Amino acid sequence: MQRKSFAGMECNIARSVEEVGDGWSLMILRNALLGAKRFQDFAAQLDVPPTTLARRLQSLTARGFFERRVYATHPAREEYELTAKGLDFLPVLLSLAAWGGRWLSPDGVPLELVHTETGAVIQPSLIDACTGKELVAGQVSVQAGPGASPALRRALKRQRPVFGACSTFSTLVPCAPCEPCETERGAP
Amino acid sequence: MQRKSFAGMECNIARSVEEVGDGWSLMILRNALLGAKRFQDFAAQLDVPPTTLARRLQSLTARGFFERRVYATHPAREEYELTAKGLDFLPVLLSLAAWGGRWLSPDGVPLELVHTETGAVIQPSLIDACTGKELVAGQVSVQAGPGASPALRRALKRQRPVFGACSTFSTLVPCAPCEPCETERGAP
Repeated sequence: MQRKSFAGMECNIARSVEEVGDGWSLMILRNALLGAKRFQDFAAQLDVPPTTLARRLQSLTARGFFERRVYATHPAREEYELTAKGLDFLPVLLSLAAWGGRWLSPDGVPLELVHTETGAVIQPSLIDACTGKELVAGQVSVQAGPGASPALRRALKRQRPVFGACSTFSTLVPCAPCEPCETERGAP
Repeated sequence: MQRKSFAGMECNIARSVEEVGDGWSLMILRNALLGAKRFQDFAAQLDVPPTTLARRLQSLTARGFFERRVYATHPAREEYELTAKGLDFLPVLLSLAAWGGRWLSPDGVPLELVHTETGAVIQPSLIDACTGKELVAGQVSVQAGPGASPALRRALKRQRPVFGACSTFSTLVPCAPCEPCETERGAP
């Protein structure tokens, strides 16, 4: 990414962009989610200089995507096990893969996503777990969350309306999540 | 991103990473998907140098995310309208936002995703449109698609098995997509 840091921005997307870091980190996460665990696996699968690979693995481990696990003692060997945070990154990469398959593959997709058990081709689709409906542009807006600073709340009120359907941020009905969402968000 | 180009890689994710470019481009797409269309909207909403913003908008337009539309003639003014390709990027950004909300917001999420019509909080979840089931790590693998080169096909056969559930890439049952997928992929 850029020199500019997105980490301080009050936005889940900006923080995620900063956290992941760069293209190589995404490629490493992709291969980890496809089963790679050892340094030599990543090195064999990615055309990446070893020093770059080592730095990215170290950085991703420091950021909590991986945990190191000793799998041999003579000589000492470690592998990189995805944490819950790393495993939970799957939807981001699958969404990227599906979008790339639709828009960047004029000669047909090079790689198809398949289910490991059935072998059937997978068609990723992002839905709202509360309603079961597909999420499409024009229907999604944002509002200040519990962690929003007073400055962000003021900025959201000042900003131009989002989408056609919604006149201003501030006129949105207050959050009324369904049962499963309340539970998942850890509400009492 | 990096100097290294991912565009030539035979992977939908790598191509997508290359296509989007960098963190600023993702921030611009985010704001466009939230309704921003004019240069001054993006400039007011993003703390970005005008030359950087102009370059990124130009690059995203050249890559087919935006189309320029004249909205005033005296003086001449244009706005940036998201194309189908740009609108279709929504699931990637929503997946990033949801992941960031879960893992990078220890003090509560700064921004919540809400439905523009109902105002209800949205809980993005990635499912397989063929089965309706949520996609989770360990269940997703890849196989050579129609656009795979002979070299990629050989590499996939050579590589270590992915995940526990799947012994090798090559033992996967050939693609047997369900009806809606066939249709969506434009098969005859």
